[in-house]
Amino acid sequence: MSGEDAPAQQQNAVDQKQETKPAEEPKSEPPKTESAPAAAAEAAATPAAATTEKAPEEETFTYRALVLTGYGGYDKVKLQVKKGKPALKAGEVLLRVKACGLNFADLMARQGLYDRLPSPPVTPGMECAGVVEAVGEEVTDRKVGDKVMALSRFGMWQEVAVVPANHTFLIPEGMSFEEAAALPVNYITAYMMLFDFGNLRPNQSVLIHAAAGGVGIAATQLCKTVKDVTVFGTASASKHETITQGGVTHAIDYRTKDYVEEVRKISPKGLDIILDPLGGSDTHKAYNLLKPMGKLITYGAANMLAGQRKNLIAVAKNWYHQFSIHTLSLIQGNKSVCGFHLGYLDGETELIAQVMNTILELHQQGKIKPHIDSTWHLEQVGDAMRKMQERNNVGKVVLTTEPMPEEEKKEEAKKEDKKKEDKKKDDKKKDDGKKEEKKDEKKKEEPKKEEKKEEETKEEAKKEEK
Amino acid sequence: MSGEDAPAQQQNAVDQKQETKPAEEPKSEPPKTESAPAAAAEAAATPAAATTEKAPEEETFTYRALVLTGYGGYDKVKLQVKKGKPALKAGEVLLRVKACGLNFADLMARQGLYDRLPSPPVTPGMECAGVVEAVGEEVTDRKVGDKVMALSRFGMWQEVAVVPANHTFLIPEGMSFEEAAALPVNYITAYMMLFDFGNLRPNQSVLIHAAAGGVGIAATQLCKTVKDVTVFGTASASKHETITQGGVTHAIDYRTKDYVEEVRKISPKGLDIILDPLGGSDTHKAYNLLKPMGKLITYGAANMLAGQRKNLIAVAKNWYHQFSIHTLSLIQGNKSVCGFHLGYLDGETELIAQVMNTILELHQQGKIKPHIDSTWHLEQVGDAMRKMQERNNVGKVVLTTEPMPEEEKKEEAKKEDKKKEDKKKDDKKKDDGKKEEKKDEKKKEEPKKEEKKEEETKEEAKKEEK
Repeated sequence: MSGEDAPAQQQNAVDQKQETKPAEEPKSEPPKTESAPAAAAEAAATPAAATTEKAPEEETFTYRALVLTGYGGYDKVKLQVKKGKPALKAGEVLLRVKACGLNFADLMARQGLYDRLPSPPVTPGMECAGVVEAVGEEVTDRKVGDKVMALSRFGMWQEVAVVPANHTFLIPEGMSFEEAAALPVNYITAYMMLFDFGNLRPNQSVLIHAAAGGVGIAATQLCKTVKDVTVFGTASASKHETITQGGVTHAIDYRTKDYVEEVRKISPKGLDIILDPLGGSDTHKAYNLLKPMGKLITYGAANMLAGQRKNLIAVAKNWYHQFSIHTLSLIQGNKSVCGFHLGYLDGETELIAQVMNTILELHQQGKIKPHIDSTWHLEQVGDAMRKMQERNNVGKVVLTTEPMPEEEKKEEAKKEDKKKEDKKKDDKKKDDGKKEEKKDEKKKEEPKKEEKKEEETKEEAKKEEK
Repeated sequence: MSGEDAPAQQQNAVDQKQETKPAEEPKSEPPKTESAPAAAAEAAATPAAATTEKAPEEETFTYRALVLTGYGGYDKVKLQVKKGKPALKAGEVLLRVKACGLNFADLMARQGLYDRLPSPPVTPGMECAGVVEAVGEEVTDRKVGDKVMALSRFGMWQEVAVVPANHTFLIPEGMSFEEAAALPVNYITAYMMLFDFGNLRPNQSVLIHAAAGGVGIAATQLCKTVKDVTVFGTASASKHETITQGGVTHAIDYRTKDYVEEVRKISPKGLDIILDPLGGSDTHKAYNLLKPMGKLITYGAANMLAGQRKNLIAVAKNWYHQFSIHTLSLIQGNKSVCGFHLGYLDGETELIAQVMNTILELHQQGKIKPHIDSTWHLEQVGDAMRKMQERNNVGKVVLTTEPMPEEEKKEEAKKEDKKKEDKKKDDKKKDDGKKEEKKDEKKKEEPKKEEKKEEETKEEAKKEEK
């Protein structure tokens, strides 16, 4: 249950008592049994017919679940079969999950960079859409058969999930499960940043980084609900047409241009609101780009995410450039710096519900609509994550729990040759990765020395240049 | 043109180009002539009849002005007579000032702790109310005889002042000059903090420090314009009745109680908005008192203001405890930290005008009304400043340019004995002060050593205790 990005570690936490206390953990986690890779592979290969049959006895109840088996690359998330019907506590509902959303925090979590996910093995996923299959005691406003979307700290990437009823929201007429799974995290994040912290008003200007991402598209649509808002959006050039059609006033290709310069050309005095999912040095740039009474809202550290596995240099660099601000500078600049992450708002059920209701009203009015980049079967979660992490998506990446149809499988078989080729590449990468991982272990023990060595190397290089 | 408090020095300034560029300086400053104390005393003693006569020739045009002659105690602001009618540039108006507002930044400025005031000799004062006496070229929306209130970086504490026409606002029917002089700085500050940065909404909770001060009373009144807002206000016990009547829900005597504990008793989850004019360690407390999505708005460093003259220990302590925040903590806490000071918003004429119009509408609707603590003659500016600095005011301290009536002078004469007595005390203090000042000079050279000595003394004391 996160924005696009998540902080690496919970450091410098101040007054986090409410936020960090463990929230309602989905009860769908099985008694921890060994999940041998063989079993997972078997599960992945088995058609999921078993999951659609009703099992009166808890022992025969099975369902497929994605499980993060350890921190690392895309292959660390494995498809497994779980047994036993999860028990319901008072206030909870059991969902038959139809679709799940991918979020940046899931990618961070896979690398061990997100402290709101318990240690592996654990099922990731912060949002899903599905059908209520059972209700616990004291649940009055949900009934079996209700189509709902749900938010949770984790545990949504599986066919069966348990959540508190007040973490679910009825899916409006005409909205597909995929759309419903794409909506909560991105739109709540974008809404709260723009309208709670940002206090967005007519005629203001907003900078949206990764404007083609899930939060980016949501934020753009929400900006357009306010009169005469100018939206600056960064994205690679190939996505400019889409984001411009979606409402971005000035699309900036951050890969070929200095976005600060581009913004200043058009808006010399700076901007009213900047949404910053990047962290590190980009937060400094954002602060300097604010006009008086401007608000910088930082909600992640995507700059930390470099490559498939945790990149210690990227993490250290991000940490080193971490933005820190004195109140005197804020006073003299008349500026505001805010931090947002839905993953730390567990306790604020009522607030989230209010926001969600507003978002659903905007949806009813046709003012917002989730933009789905692609939908993937649970078996394809690795490819789905890769697409998002490599920034090849435009909009939301969604998982569906629908079993892969036989026809599709046949079609897939046709592509087998190409896939095998890709796999070979992947395996090579994996091998390299393992080597890297071993190196990483060493680095963990003495990262500072590593940095020192780097510096020394740089200095030597400079000397040589001379 | 400030909130209640002002930062000491412009350090750590980031991207201040727009804010720090010199604004339109009032042109009423005379050609710098020596202002001998004798002349000032003479001026103070002279009835100000001369100021009300129309002087067609600029040479014979005189007016009384308060002048900060150097940094230090209350006696550093002296009443002088200036000669020569100030020239008007295009877009400016000449005002016959009737009343002026005192602000915390004026007190800071007197001690040399406010970098928006030019070096002495200079006329302080950021707001006034008066009558337009002449208009420059290109001024279309003001005419001679208009009653207006005005904002400026400085230069308002005099009988005649020049300001850009767009820094003036028409005084509504029925509002006295004193009320008009009490309104702009306090209400604009409170409004922008609560409704721009704070985004105050129904059912929220707000902590207002110094709730009986100018900004405090303004903020309380503005909070009451929103449904079901809970206001926590700190003030000494004697002022509780007034602030409670004014709209404070929970009055807290900060002198006898720990305000953090008191707030937690009533609002265990913390607060939505905290206005912090104190700085230093109180900013840390405020940050920890925020609930998720809470906003801390810091607008001064009143903790620096200890005693009549600059107190280096207080300044150093405030600096040492200066609040600095990492984005990661903000993200994990879902918090916002904002800085506000009207004195650095020179360039934002349009924005200020919008806010002022809203404030005047609220006044028309009877929802806000400046609360005047006391009105003083220019001759009494020292006493006026003392009242404010010693926190003996409830509401706004105002200066009037009306000459002191003969009758009042006679009454004053009756109090002469008491005054003389007071003066003796004052003189003694001044003598002590001078000694202190000398010490201060030394301290300036080696403040760190001084602190070290203090620490050593404390340690010795501890040892002795053992």
